[in-house]
Amino acid sequence: MDVTERTISAIGPLDRAAESGARQRLDSLTKPQGSLGRLEEIVARYAAIRGDATARMGRGAILVFVGDHGVAEAGVSAYPKAVTVEMLRNIGAGGAAISVLARRFGYDLIVTDVGVETDTSAQPFVGVRYRRVAAGTRNFLDGPAMTLIEARRAVAIGIDTSREMVEAGVTLIGIGEMGIANSTSAAALIARITGIDAAKLVGRGTGVDDAGLRRKTEVVEAALTFHRAVADNGSSVLAAIGGLEIAAMVGACLGAAARRVPVVVDGFIATAAAAVAIKIASQVRDYMIFSHRSAEGGHALAVEVLGGRPLLDLGMRLGEGTGAALAMNLIESAIALFHQMASFASAGVSQKIE
Amino acid sequence: MDVTERTISAIGPLDRAAESGARQRLDSLTKPQGSLGRLEEIVARYAAIRGDATARMGRGAILVFVGDHGVAEAGVSAYPKAVTVEMLRNIGAGGAAISVLARRFGYDLIVTDVGVETDTSAQPFVGVRYRRVAAGTRNFLDGPAMTLIEARRAVAIGIDTSREMVEAGVTLIGIGEMGIANSTSAAALIARITGIDAAKLVGRGTGVDDAGLRRKTEVVEAALTFHRAVADNGSSVLAAIGGLEIAAMVGACLGAAARRVPVVVDGFIATAAAAVAIKIASQVRDYMIFSHRSAEGGHALAVEVLGGRPLLDLGMRLGEGTGAALAMNLIESAIALFHQMASFASAGVSQKIE
Repeated sequence: MDVTERTISAIGPLDRAAESGARQRLDSLTKPQGSLGRLEEIVARYAAIRGDATARMGRGAILVFVGDHGVAEAGVSAYPKAVTVEMLRNIGAGGAAISVLARRFGYDLIVTDVGVETDTSAQPFVGVRYRRVAAGTRNFLDGPAMTLIEARRAVAIGIDTSREMVEAGVTLIGIGEMGIANSTSAAALIARITGIDAAKLVGRGTGVDDAGLRRKTEVVEAALTFHRAVADNGSSVLAAIGGLEIAAMVGACLGAAARRVPVVVDGFIATAAAAVAIKIASQVRDYMIFSHRSAEGGHALAVEVLGGRPLLDLGMRLGEGTGAALAMNLIESAIALFHQMASFASAGVSQKIE
Repeated sequence: MDVTERTISAIGPLDRAAESGARQRLDSLTKPQGSLGRLEEIVARYAAIRGDATARMGRGAILVFVGDHGVAEAGVSAYPKAVTVEMLRNIGAGGAAISVLARRFGYDLIVTDVGVETDTSAQPFVGVRYRRVAAGTRNFLDGPAMTLIEARRAVAIGIDTSREMVEAGVTLIGIGEMGIANSTSAAALIARITGIDAAKLVGRGTGVDDAGLRRKTEVVEAALTFHRAVADNGSSVLAAIGGLEIAAMVGACLGAAARRVPVVVDGFIATAAAAVAIKIASQVRDYMIFSHRSAEGGHALAVEVLGGRPLLDLGMRLGEGTGAALAMNLIESAIALFHQMASFASAGVSQKIE
C-alpha cells in the first residue's frame, strides 16, 4: 500500500458514544435545549470526529496550497497568471486576507508552493514552504493536467502536511488555496464527479465579464468532452482536469480524517477537492465541515449535492481559506460555550415546566 | 425637551464621504473587488456611521437588559417566571452563554436589572447593575404593561447606558435581553408596528408545545384587540404592550445612534426594540446592524419588513445578546482585514486585466 491507501484505510467511523455524551452535556447547560442551533450541532460533530465527549480543543491550522494552471492560457481568468506567484509572496509575508485572519484568530498558517509556474525556491519567500511537484499543470484542453504520479505526489504532500499539524497538537484544520484559473478546474471536477451541468457550476471567479463567463463555460464543457473516457475514479479525474493545489487539499482532507481531525472546507475550489476526496473515500465526508456558501456560481448546489450545509453565507468569493478561517473561529466559539457555560444544577436555574 | 427628545434630535445622517473613502481603500486591497462580500459592506457601513473613512475601532460592549412580564401569568412560556432572576444572577456570575462569548471576545458586558419581579438589590448579584423601574410589567391583557412615565424611564436608562459606554471608548454596541415571556410582548409589538399577522410572528420562544403556541398566539391577538385604540406612536405602543427591558433596548439604540456608534441587534426580542426605535425616529435605522436570523417564528419576516438583512443564520434562539456578540466578532474581523491587508501597490501584485 502507498501512503494514500494506508491513509484511506485508517479513516474510521464517527464515535457516536462521544457524540451522545456531548449532547447530554449540551442539554444540561443554562439555555433552552437546542437554542444555540447549529453551534450545538457543531460541538456534537466535533466530539464525534475526535472521539472525545469533552471536546477538548487544541490549536487550529489553515493549510493554503498554491499552484498554477495550464488552462489559464485559455483566457478564463480576470487576472494575469503572474498573480499566483505574487500572491504566494503576499500570503507568506502577512499581507493577504488569510494572513490577517490567521493572525487574528491565532491559527498556524502553512503556505505551500506545490506547483507555481515561477520557481522562487532558490530565493525563498518568507513564510512559504516549497514542495513543488511541477511548474504548474498542463492545459487540460490538450491532454491531462497532470500525470497520475504527479497527482499522487501532490496528494501525499497534503497528507503529510495534515499529519505534521496533528502531531504538533492541531485539532482543527482549514483548507484553502490560491491559483489563477483554478475555479475553471474546480468547476470541471465538480461537474464530472457530481454530474451537475457545467453551465450551472461555472461562475465569474475573480471577476470575468460576460464574454469571459461564456468562454469559461465552453472551456469546461470542452474539457469534459475531451476527457470523457477517463476512468471514473477520483485519482484519474483529478489528474486529468484537476490542479496540484487541489490535489494537495484532497490529501489534507484524507490525512486529517485518518487522524480524527475535522477538516473545514473553504469555498468553491476547496469544495472541488472535497468532492474528489469523497469520490476516493466516501467515509471522509463525515469529517468535513463546509464553512461558507461562496458567491461563486454553483457552489451552493455543489455543497448540497455533497450533503453539506455551509455555516456562513456572506457573499464571499476570495478563497485562500478565508471562509474556513471565519468558520473555524465560530466552531471555537461553540466549543468555548460548551466548556464554560454553567449547568442548570450548578447555577441554580429552574428547568422547563413539563 | 426631555432626554429622549434631545437624543433623537442628535441623530444625524450617515457620512457618505467617509463611506466612499472606505470603499476606495477596500478596492485597493489585494483581493478581487467585492470578493469579501458582506464583510466589505460592513466596513463601509461602519465608516459611514462613525464618520471615519479609516474605520478606527475602539472597544465593543454588550448591553443586556433584564425584566419580568406580567403576561407570563397567561402561561405563554415553557419556563417558570423565577428563571428571569435566576438567569440575571447567572449572566452576572459568568455562567450564561452571553457571559462566555463576551469574555471570549473581550467585550464589556453590562447587565442591568430594569424590572425583575424579585428585587435582589439589597444583596446585589455580582456583575449586575440595578436600575429598577418597577417589579416587572403588568399583564397587558388587563391594561397597559407600563405607564408612559415608566416606559420613558426605562428608555432613558438605555440611552444613559449607551452614553456612558461611548464616553468610555466603546465604538460598537450590541443589545440583548432576558425576561420570561418577553417573546410574547415582542410578537405583539412587531405585529402592531409592522402590520404583520400575529400568527406569522408568534414562535415557540424557549420551547412551548403546540398547545402553548396556540395559547401564545391567542394572547397576542387578544392584546392587539384590547389595545387597538392606543395612539399610533412608538412610546404609547411600547407602554401598552412592551416590556421594561425592551424599552431600555429602545433607548440603547437611540443613544448609540445619537453618538454615531453602530448598534448590533440580537434576535427576535431585540428586533422588537429596533422596530419601536424606528417607529420613534426612523433615521435610527441606518445605525442598526441585524446580527442573525433567529429560529424564532417570524423573525426573518420582521427583519425583512424593517429593511434589515441578518449577517448570520445559525438557527439560534437564545437571546441574551448571543447572536449580537457573534456578529460583532465578525464585524471586528472585517475591520481587521480593512486595516491590515496589503494593497496591490504595496505588495507588488498585478491588477485585473482590463
